[in-house]
Amino acid sequence: MTDVNTTDLAAIDRHIEEHLEQYLADLRLLCRLPSVAAQSRSIDETAEATRGLLEKYGVAATIMPTARFPVVYGEASGTANETVLCYNHYDVQPAEPLELWDSEPFDAIVRDGSIFGRGVGDDKGHIICRLAAIDALCAVTGGLPCGIKFLIEGEEEIGSGSLDPFIAEHKDMLQADGCLWEFGGVDYDGRPQIFAGMRGDLYVELRVRTANRDAHSGLGGSQFPNAAWRLTWALATLKNQNERILIPGWYDDVRDASPRDMELLEALPSEEDRLQRTYGLKNFLLDATGTELKRRALFEPTCTISGLSSGYQGPGSKTILPAEAMAKVDFRLVPNQSAEQLLGKLKQHLADQGFDDIDVIQHGGYDAARVDPDAPFVQLVADTGWDVYDRPVALHPTSGGSGPMDSFVRHLGMPIANVGIGYPDSGAHAPNEHVRIDDFIRGIKQTARVFLRMGESGTR
Amino acid sequence: MTDVNTTDLAAIDRHIEEHLEQYLADLRLLCRLPSVAAQSRSIDETAEATRGLLEKYGVAATIMPTARFPVVYGEASGTANETVLCYNHYDVQPAEPLELWDSEPFDAIVRDGSIFGRGVGDDKGHIICRLAAIDALCAVTGGLPCGIKFLIEGEEEIGSGSLDPFIAEHKDMLQADGCLWEFGGVDYDGRPQIFAGMRGDLYVELRVRTANRDAHSGLGGSQFPNAAWRLTWALATLKNQNERILIPGWYDDVRDASPRDMELLEALPSEEDRLQRTYGLKNFLLDATGTELKRRALFEPTCTISGLSSGYQGPGSKTILPAEAMAKVDFRLVPNQSAEQLLGKLKQHLADQGFDDIDVIQHGGYDAARVDPDAPFVQLVADTGWDVYDRPVALHPTSGGSGPMDSFVRHLGMPIANVGIGYPDSGAHAPNEHVRIDDFIRGIKQTARVFLRMGESGTR
Repeated sequence: MTDVNTTDLAAIDRHIEEHLEQYLADLRLLCRLPSVAAQSRSIDETAEATRGLLEKYGVAATIMPTARFPVVYGEASGTANETVLCYNHYDVQPAEPLELWDSEPFDAIVRDGSIFGRGVGDDKGHIICRLAAIDALCAVTGGLPCGIKFLIEGEEEIGSGSLDPFIAEHKDMLQADGCLWEFGGVDYDGRPQIFAGMRGDLYVELRVRTANRDAHSGLGGSQFPNAAWRLTWALATLKNQNERILIPGWYDDVRDASPRDMELLEALPSEEDRLQRTYGLKNFLLDATGTELKRRALFEPTCTISGLSSGYQGPGSKTILPAEAMAKVDFRLVPNQSAEQLLGKLKQHLADQGFDDIDVIQHGGYDAARVDPDAPFVQLVADTGWDVYDRPVALHPTSGGSGPMDSFVRHLGMPIANVGIGYPDSGAHAPNEHVRIDDFIRGIKQTARVFLRMGESGTR
Repeated sequence: MTDVNTTDLAAIDRHIEEHLEQYLADLRLLCRLPSVAAQSRSIDETAEATRGLLEKYGVAATIMPTARFPVVYGEASGTANETVLCYNHYDVQPAEPLELWDSEPFDAIVRDGSIFGRGVGDDKGHIICRLAAIDALCAVTGGLPCGIKFLIEGEEEIGSGSLDPFIAEHKDMLQADGCLWEFGGVDYDGRPQIFAGMRGDLYVELRVRTANRDAHSGLGGSQFPNAAWRLTWALATLKNQNERILIPGWYDDVRDASPRDMELLEALPSEEDRLQRTYGLKNFLLDATGTELKRRALFEPTCTISGLSSGYQGPGSKTILPAEAMAKVDFRLVPNQSAEQLLGKLKQHLADQGFDDIDVIQHGGYDAARVDPDAPFVQLVADTGWDVYDRPVALHPTSGGSGPMDSFVRHLGMPIANVGIGYPDSGAHAPNEHVRIDDFIRGIKQTARVFLRMGESGTR
């Protein structure tokens, strides 16, 4: 295959638009499988369905075991030697709280120009987006311009525990000239976004049990230890109201934003108004604004309580003293912090503060990852974004989110960029997760252009 | 009716034993109605069923409206002028957590010598206990030895909000020479207990909402306020790890245990071993033991977190930043503290600490009440306990529990004591609430004796 002309591009775009229903039907098929990794639901079934879809679109696919949930691996060869590795995941976040959904979370439906359902964006829509691009390229040009590999894991929403050893073991198989990350999309201004990195994450559950049963609060209040109080006091030692994490040594390895990072941050459009409207916020934490708010959003370690549970939570009063309490705590890490080391520091801190009774259960851990924002592959992806969206890409020095990007950087050393179908109010991880159909179409078109450009010239 | 001889007493006891099945059947009938006040369930139905039972046992009964849930009032006259007022309640605690029950909470069943179900002890069993005593007295002696009145409310488990105005409005109707309180029973050593007072209670729900929806914790962690953190920090300002309540002025009006109180505390048997075994405790709060532990249990203001709720509480991880958080907090009050004033101090404290965003919703409030432990009516009840249980009564200066006793003391000025069917592991307010059948029988026998003795000599 030689250079693609504009006639081909128009034909590819037309093919995508004309086959939209087929792509949405395939997306619905995947979304009907409730592959909630945290709840170990429908994992094997979804891996198999994903493999089947890859095969349907001409990608030779196989299911490869890991220590826990299997990886779906796929390969399709192209005219050029250049290869793109697509990283995706077939697992999804829990759908709870169910009562806040306006439609069945696992029955993806189209309404008001969007498709709603758990996983439509994160991340099943991106799997379909890439397969649709392959479909259009093959239909219009008779083949693929570049080699395409798929690494689709099943543990992304629970910390990708099996992925790092999998990548380390299959370095040769996974070699490529660039990696398309699992997410992407546009910001509030409709500008496509590229993230040259991800934050790290340490997600833990703190559990305390102070007795073998709940007591009447009239009996135990001044005599028995109270699990809810133990947890509250322990949590209060983790972070103060100035948002400073109080665990000794937490900031020791923090690498601050570089001058180039600050340059990229300055160039990003402000999303303050939109965020305030969307979430109904009066102001941001510590009243931060402007570049400082952007810096805090991406380069400040965080400690977020994601869940609290103890005792009676129903209406009215129940006079009990709870024997058990639980908190979920999500720490986001910045470059150079080590999730493993910080877990040790957290445990040591709790012990030092007298909270030996609090169990720390780890549910996820990633180190932060950085990609050179000026790498040619990143530039190539940025150019295709400009082409499809008719405006320049917003290049973020890192995503606020977390993922196993560090494993790709460390083991495979390839440049990474992203093309996607989301927008800020897509509701990833929240009720009523959705993707706008227009974003879905544009994501497919941009993905097709990335494959085309890789076949034409690669990143050389 | 004249003095009752021991033949009559034996016949009364025999009648009680022979009609046990009937009394248990009536108890099951009441317990099948899930009259959970906190959830506004089956209230009118249960009031009507209670009225019907009173009528069945010859007590003229009527349902009297209040601002919220109705009172069932009953009267039966006796040979003597002396009258006993029975205070009870037909509402119950929520049955949650349902999964911890070994049988249906609202289908009271007899198993292993006990009857299990929500309300079998607290408080429907006590209503039946009193009616059974009336039944036996009428059957054996042809009538009642003293007048008996019933005041059975429907809001005891949610703070008796309508009771104080009801009592104030019906002082004349409610006049009596002594009041039998709604609970009672034996301690771990099988000694019947009398409580010359109750602690006060202030039960509040703290609620905070920081946004109009949950956010992804990767987005909001260092930018958005977090409801769970706001709640945690606010709670941590309420009490320190030395169990000292930090709200300014909380201890201002505390009346310490008197020398007579300390004398009564000293005389009480130790329950430390039993409590430690039952609840699986290594030690008590602040390592208290002996008389100090007894004093703390009854004369120390408490601040108990009864429930915590925010964000994701399911298995594994969900990376959200919650927009809402809630805590239920149960403060127990000692004599001379005012629930109303303390509520004001709590609100002021939260405002002073910068927690204007935290809503305080009151679910209950009682002031503490004290009864003269040496009053003749209390002595009469104690004597009947010795008679039935063949051991001296344990006379507590106050109960650790709370109730609307202060309204009786303030408006009616009558002595109060208690006879009952519980024991320390009855599971009041907990899963598998139960009453031992032997305790049920003994409670009826003692109640019959209290009515008899009131008819014989009263408290003069």
